[in-house]
Amino acid sequence: MFHLQRNVYLDNNATTRVTPHVARAMSAVLKRRFGNPSSLYRIGRDAAAVVEDARQVVATTIHAEPDEIVFTGSATEANNQVLTVLTDIHYPTRRKIVSTPIEHPSVMATLAHLEGRGVSVEFLPVDRLGRVVLAALDAAIDTNTFLVCCMLANNELGTIQDVVQVTRTAHARGVTVLSDCVQALGKMPIDVRALGIDYATFSAHKLHGPKGVGAVFVRRGAPFRAFLHGGHQEAGMRAGTEGVHNIAGFAAACRALPTVLPRMGETARRTQLLADELRRLKPDIVINSPQQGCLPNTLSVTFPDVTNTVLMAALDLYGVAVSAGSACSAGETKPSHVLKAIGLSDDAAHQTIRFSLAEDTSVKDLRYVLRVLRDHLDGKTPAIRALRASQVDHHFLFDDANYILDVRFWHERKLLKGLPNSHEASFVSFKKYVHHVPRNKHVLVVCMGGVDAIPIAYALKSKRCDNVSFLLGGVVGWRIAQPDLYARYAGTNVTAIEPRAPRRARPRLPP
Amino acid sequence: MFHLQRNVYLDNNATTRVTPHVARAMSAVLKRRFGNPSSLYRIGRDAAAVVEDARQVVATTIHAEPDEIVFTGSATEANNQVLTVLTDIHYPTRRKIVSTPIEHPSVMATLAHLEGRGVSVEFLPVDRLGRVVLAALDAAIDTNTFLVCCMLANNELGTIQDVVQVTRTAHARGVTVLSDCVQALGKMPIDVRALGIDYATFSAHKLHGPKGVGAVFVRRGAPFRAFLHGGHQEAGMRAGTEGVHNIAGFAAACRALPTVLPRMGETARRTQLLADELRRLKPDIVINSPQQGCLPNTLSVTFPDVTNTVLMAALDLYGVAVSAGSACSAGETKPSHVLKAIGLSDDAAHQTIRFSLAEDTSVKDLRYVLRVLRDHLDGKTPAIRALRASQVDHHFLFDDANYILDVRFWHERKLLKGLPNSHEASFVSFKKYVHHVPRNKHVLVVCMGGVDAIPIAYALKSKRCDNVSFLLGGVVGWRIAQPDLYARYAGTNVTAIEPRAPRRARPRLPP
Repeated sequence: MFHLQRNVYLDNNATTRVTPHVARAMSAVLKRRFGNPSSLYRIGRDAAAVVEDARQVVATTIHAEPDEIVFTGSATEANNQVLTVLTDIHYPTRRKIVSTPIEHPSVMATLAHLEGRGVSVEFLPVDRLGRVVLAALDAAIDTNTFLVCCMLANNELGTIQDVVQVTRTAHARGVTVLSDCVQALGKMPIDVRALGIDYATFSAHKLHGPKGVGAVFVRRGAPFRAFLHGGHQEAGMRAGTEGVHNIAGFAAACRALPTVLPRMGETARRTQLLADELRRLKPDIVINSPQQGCLPNTLSVTFPDVTNTVLMAALDLYGVAVSAGSACSAGETKPSHVLKAIGLSDDAAHQTIRFSLAEDTSVKDLRYVLRVLRDHLDGKTPAIRALRASQVDHHFLFDDANYILDVRFWHERKLLKGLPNSHEASFVSFKKYVHHVPRNKHVLVVCMGGVDAIPIAYALKSKRCDNVSFLLGGVVGWRIAQPDLYARYAGTNVTAIEPRAPRRARPRLPP
Repeated sequence: MFHLQRNVYLDNNATTRVTPHVARAMSAVLKRRFGNPSSLYRIGRDAAAVVEDARQVVATTIHAEPDEIVFTGSATEANNQVLTVLTDIHYPTRRKIVSTPIEHPSVMATLAHLEGRGVSVEFLPVDRLGRVVLAALDAAIDTNTFLVCCMLANNELGTIQDVVQVTRTAHARGVTVLSDCVQALGKMPIDVRALGIDYATFSAHKLHGPKGVGAVFVRRGAPFRAFLHGGHQEAGMRAGTEGVHNIAGFAAACRALPTVLPRMGETARRTQLLADELRRLKPDIVINSPQQGCLPNTLSVTFPDVTNTVLMAALDLYGVAVSAGSACSAGETKPSHVLKAIGLSDDAAHQTIRFSLAEDTSVKDLRYVLRVLRDHLDGKTPAIRALRASQVDHHFLFDDANYILDVRFWHERKLLKGLPNSHEASFVSFKKYVHHVPRNKHVLVVCMGGVDAIPIAYALKSKRCDNVSFLLGGVVGWRIAQPDLYARYAGTNVTAIEPRAPRRARPRLPP
């Protein structure tokens, strides 16, 4: 079955397809509402009306008032703003934030940044299914605490937290609550009043809206300030000319929710079907998502003895997109902090795949995915060899029968030199250089940490590059395993096989 | 001539019309490149390729390398990032920034914010035409100074600074340079190498690209850090899922520049034509933009004895969009800090209009604008009466022949109570409430500071509301002039004439 038969996108927690009606709303604004909303003449007022209309829609969606919504450039910005601004307000009088160890990276990284400024952060414990142990909350709050930060639904597991209980406990102690609702919006009803939260953050691109627009809910009366300084946009709470088309796209995505949300029961049944069939396929799988209190579309599964990045790449070869659940940061492949927090070993985390369905994912889609998965587990899909760093020795490097393809990103190349005799090409523009790669050699695909190389190796395999493998641990691992070779040869005889694109005067669709 | 005959948009320094090829490029990405660029499978790689392709195009446009470009959510964010991050790096070892008093609000406000953190800012003097007195630069730099911040071209005047000289002087003293190039890009060639700058900021929506995307140029080797914390996007320099379609739109706008820039000589001649004809029309005008060393499209003109906001609103009535050049912030109408810095009196600043042409502004467009202007100066356009706060007394307020329309923004209404017996309506959704306003009464339009009311009053006049006036100084001025009336009656018998829009399940074009 070495042929792409179907495209099934099961990574809707990473981002979603923009629906045609959202794209149309955005396109209409781009064409007909191009004014600057701060301008007083008609063209400006018309653009401002789009923004205010969208504010109304987004507010209604979460049961808030329009004056409680601040549009931002992303949910990451929104989380940065709330956490930083509240620190500015309270520090150094109060200096403690209570949070959970399974928050989104935009919360985790901002908390780490604020710790550098003197804030102390206490993380509540979570159980094996990612449920925050709220019994520990009251004890964690002291007179120093100014904020409790707890997401509504976890992006990797789907676990929904009891935020009502969080706010009840926090408010009883006079502490405000921020809830990152990014992953929840579009998959479950959200009522900020019922939740009792003071601040909440949202992103459009998780609910079939555009990337590059988010929002903060700020309860009336809750203190707030600008994080980006400049103009008086967003009632002085967020400077910068509004991305009017993106804001309109956000609203269009929200307008669809009254028809989308009632279908979530069906989505939950599909997710359950997938879980059941996976268990039939491989009885030793471990499902990390909770059965109850979980987003209807999210399923985190550990496949013992299966490397998730290899499985992800193999599925990709057949048009199936899933998440390997690990954040690959420059230079190293860390296991997901969420999976670690719920008690998975590093090995188990590296064997975990996240499936996240859309409301239009069909049973047929899932049957196809299960078939590809079965073939892969049965060894019927093309196998890619993994070379250990110790195997890439002097003999290998200088053997003309080997062709080393280095697909690291440009910023990674600044950190470490490449393997000798390697050929540098961009990870992202595979189509541009695939024809340069010789078919009669053994091709070793090399990346920074050993993850990015895998999909490229699979893609090469699909293009009749039969003898292909990838380097376990990437250049980072190789340097550690072969310090002498690195010191002596790294960076020598490195060729860039993809020439820089010449400047084009005329527009064209990006590749 | 009480009929809209032509739409002439002469506020291209505020924002620009998105060109069809930019909109098409964005639309293609929205439809076909919806993946998350951080995802490793093909759909993600394809989205990442769009971003990297755009990075190449933007870099080439300013003669930089792709690894020197960091995409942001706006130029405001870009300016916030450079200023804040450099302060984080240097403070408290070095704590001084040298800048100019005519920077964009996103620089001015961030500098003010940093002053609150202990940074000292020295502003260089500027001359009558907005040219920074660079002779003062060397003396302003001391051993404490870590940054010189000087824009390339001023947004209100068009004045181009000698940034080469700025970098030469600053670098001789070991100080790095940030140049806000937002208003310059698209109107003049930019070569960051020739300028010698270390950091530069850009915005797509000033060159017919989308709103909501900017970029920072960071010279190789210049220190830099993330300002938004979270994911590892943009080589770790800017967290948050990339607005891929916006970034593609930015690149598409840049791709057009090789054909746009050669037309700027023609644009400069049109701008000169406008200046010459304005002087013929009203010989006592003062042109604030320099004749030499100015953006080809920008003309700042002071019209003695003409209130700029009234002129702006009158032109708007005839489809002509210009900027009144004053930043109207909540509650008060401050004269532009740029015009004040070059020595204009408050009165002169409130008589100043900025015309900013596009490359497709035609001579016919300008002739039309000049005709409307002449009619206005000759008193042939409809006149709107301006009422002083002292005239709005007890008798006026309770006279049933008067109808008070309060068009303040929702956030302004939180700051001050409204006039008694007033009718509240949204500034931005004029079309929704225009039919509620009685034609047989004297309508007084009231806003926060006296500016926003004017275009609404003119718009009402164009809708057969013959007896209309506006309140000078707005609610702010009225409270000062009538403290007893404010204390006793403000907020009483206030009606909202525009009902809140009901939630709509189906998408539609915003009004």
